Amino acid sequence: MSAPDRRERLAWAYLAAVAEPPCPPLISLVGRYGAVETARMIRTRTLPAGNAAAVTATQARYETDSAATDLETAHRRGARLVTPDDEEWPGWALLGLDQASTSVRGGAPLALWVRGPGSLAEAASSAVGLVGSRAATAYGEHVSTRMASGLADRGVTVLSGGAFGIDGAAHRGALAAGGLTVAILACGIDRDYPSGHARLLREIGEAGLVVSEYPPGTTAAKHRFLTRNRLVAALSAAVVVVEAGRRSGATNTAAWARKLGRPLGAVPGPITSAMSVGCHQMIADGQATLVMDADSILALIQATGHDNFVRSAPSATDDLPTDEFEVIEALPASGGLTVDEIAFSAGRPVTVVLAALARLEVKGLVDSDSGLWRLAGER
Amino acid sequence: MSAPDRRERLAWAYLAAVAEPPCPPLISLVGRYGAVETARMIRTRTLPAGNAAAVTATQARYETDSAATDLETAHRRGARLVTPDDEEWPGWALLGLDQASTSVRGGAPLALWVRGPGSLAEAASSAVGLVGSRAATAYGEHVSTRMASGLADRGVTVLSGGAFGIDGAAHRGALAAGGLTVAILACGIDRDYPSGHARLLREIGEAGLVVSEYPPGTTAAKHRFLTRNRLVAALSAAVVVVEAGRRSGATNTAAWARKLGRPLGAVPGPITSAMSVGCHQMIADGQATLVMDADSILALIQATGHDNFVRSAPSATDDLPTDEFEVIEALPASGGLTVDEIAFSAGRPVTVVLAALARLEVKGLVDSDSGLWRLAGER
Repeated sequence: MSAPDRRERLAWAYLAAVAEPPCPPLISLVGRYGAVETARMIRTRTLPAGNAAAVTATQARYETDSAATDLETAHRRGARLVTPDDEEWPGWALLGLDQASTSVRGGAPLALWVRGPGSLAEAASSAVGLVGSRAATAYGEHVSTRMASGLADRGVTVLSGGAFGIDGAAHRGALAAGGLTVAILACGIDRDYPSGHARLLREIGEAGLVVSEYPPGTTAAKHRFLTRNRLVAALSAAVVVVEAGRRSGATNTAAWARKLGRPLGAVPGPITSAMSVGCHQMIADGQATLVMDADSILALIQATGHDNFVRSAPSATDDLPTDEFEVIEALPASGGLTVDEIAFSAGRPVTVVLAALARLEVKGLVDSDSGLWRLAGER
Repeated sequence: MSAPDRRERLAWAYLAAVAEPPCPPLISLVGRYGAVETARMIRTRTLPAGNAAAVTATQARYETDSAATDLETAHRRGARLVTPDDEEWPGWALLGLDQASTSVRGGAPLALWVRGPGSLAEAASSAVGLVGSRAATAYGEHVSTRMASGLADRGVTVLSGGAFGIDGAAHRGALAAGGLTVAILACGIDRDYPSGHARLLREIGEAGLVVSEYPPGTTAAKHRFLTRNRLVAALSAAVVVVEAGRRSGATNTAAWARKLGRPLGAVPGPITSAMSVGCHQMIADGQATLVMDADSILALIQATGHDNFVRSAPSATDDLPTDEFEVIEALPASGGLTVDEIAFSAGRPVTVVLAALARLEVKGLVDSDSGLWRLAGER
């Protein structure tokens, strides 16, 4: 690394540690003066007047310069510091955070520590956040694993927080399907938190990406989980809550998804399960859309006009015109119905139903027998 | 019974059997000429010109007069014929059916055969229809029973179709809670269909009501189930689908609920259960509202301005103003949050949150400790 580059890196590493993220004032200073000069002014307390916020935010740490050791630690762990100057910086995904910088814990990260092969920007270009309770049920973990595998099969990155329960199941499901998964931590990238996930985080760091805006050595803390959640939402094209109790941390990530305009999905479960109450409330309140599988999540994203997502193979009936689809839906799995009965069930006029049946018969999807229509193949 | 009354009854019983219900043309004739004269004109084929529809509808049966035997059979089974002339006729509930009389199987019933104590009109004045698959899962039957008991506890009549699975569980749940339940049959009131429910139907006929628009002796048939479904929806203030597969008959009752403007609820379940797919689709498509318990069903009904329903006892937080409720919801089950964290989770301005917290503290619902707010009693 050339001397100037090295100086730049050290400046970024210093700035990434000197204030508790997110720190919008610091980011705007870097935008105006560059990393090196901003770092110098903060270290020497020579910031121009009118930067009180930045002065306050850096008061506690400006004298401590762990930049060199942080870069060294990261290097040793196979991690790198990614800044807005780097190609893999997911700037577009973080735009919403700049706009939300006025809200508590809003604002884009100044830089991100990243461990793992491949580009963060690419991984985030078609990613879905799967989140939920740490105290998940077997059902929740099963669903999380299955959805993650389904998303991975469709080339979608699975983003989560690396926690026990739903998060871990999501990462595992993506890995099992040979897909890309990203764990965003609320602690330093050199920390295996939770320690029970040390092996999982290592695997994610080898096949996917482990990301944190906190410098190496930072310990996990409640407020950092809340801060981290905004990144999960920002880097995802949609957020899905798989299981959440009445007051789950997942509802905080869900709040960020809504704030950032990301479609929010929730997975239903037994109404007898306390771990699904949060999901059911979000659906009943109209805050989240009920999602059943990877395809319904992609449909949610495609409805927003997002086009980075692989369209799953349509089923024989998926792409039928509405009237034909409704007629198909009206037909029972076995046995037949009269045109009147179909018209009633489908809630369409008999004339429309007759026309649709004719087209469906040509397509070989239905056939009739003495006035009764049935699904082709049914007898 | 006086001779004129007896003549009236016989006329109604004849008309109730002479055409396959529903038969709007017959009903308008009765409205114009009365039951006795209408019956005479049909029996003697002397209907005024312009009544072709009624002539056709009665062609097959006008010569067969089973009125006396039908009344006799009903009497033997402890049943009665309820007509629009009777006080217990739920006319207001059936209004929507008159308006929908143009659609296949639309139209109000001409009369209803009713078995059981009490008034049909009263039973229907605050009733909820619980419907679902015959091939229900243990989960579905458990939920159906529980919801029915919960509704019965709140003085709500539980309406269903007397079938195996969800229907039977609903009736049993209402009976177990000592509540009122109504079974609407797709066959004659003297028929125990399904035969496996003979005992259940007897119990319903003793504690609740068994209802059918079909004369005694009529056998159950597929088209009669579809016809019957419209009565379940019409006599209910709301319809709830507890479990339904991809193509369940319950979706037909649901279609009637929407057509008649009755709020439609659906119960979620495991996305791994084929018996919940229909419910999940209705919720995802916005056709049904996700309901979790008796209270959420009542809320659905109250939202329509219906006031015949007992308001359930509010919980400590249920009736809080929105901002206070959101602040309470934002607080974790254990541990505390700063005002900023609450403001973020609740998505409300700090000033609003501070004001809400102050009011909640006065109400003894929250307390604070060194800048952290928690639910009262949490430590």
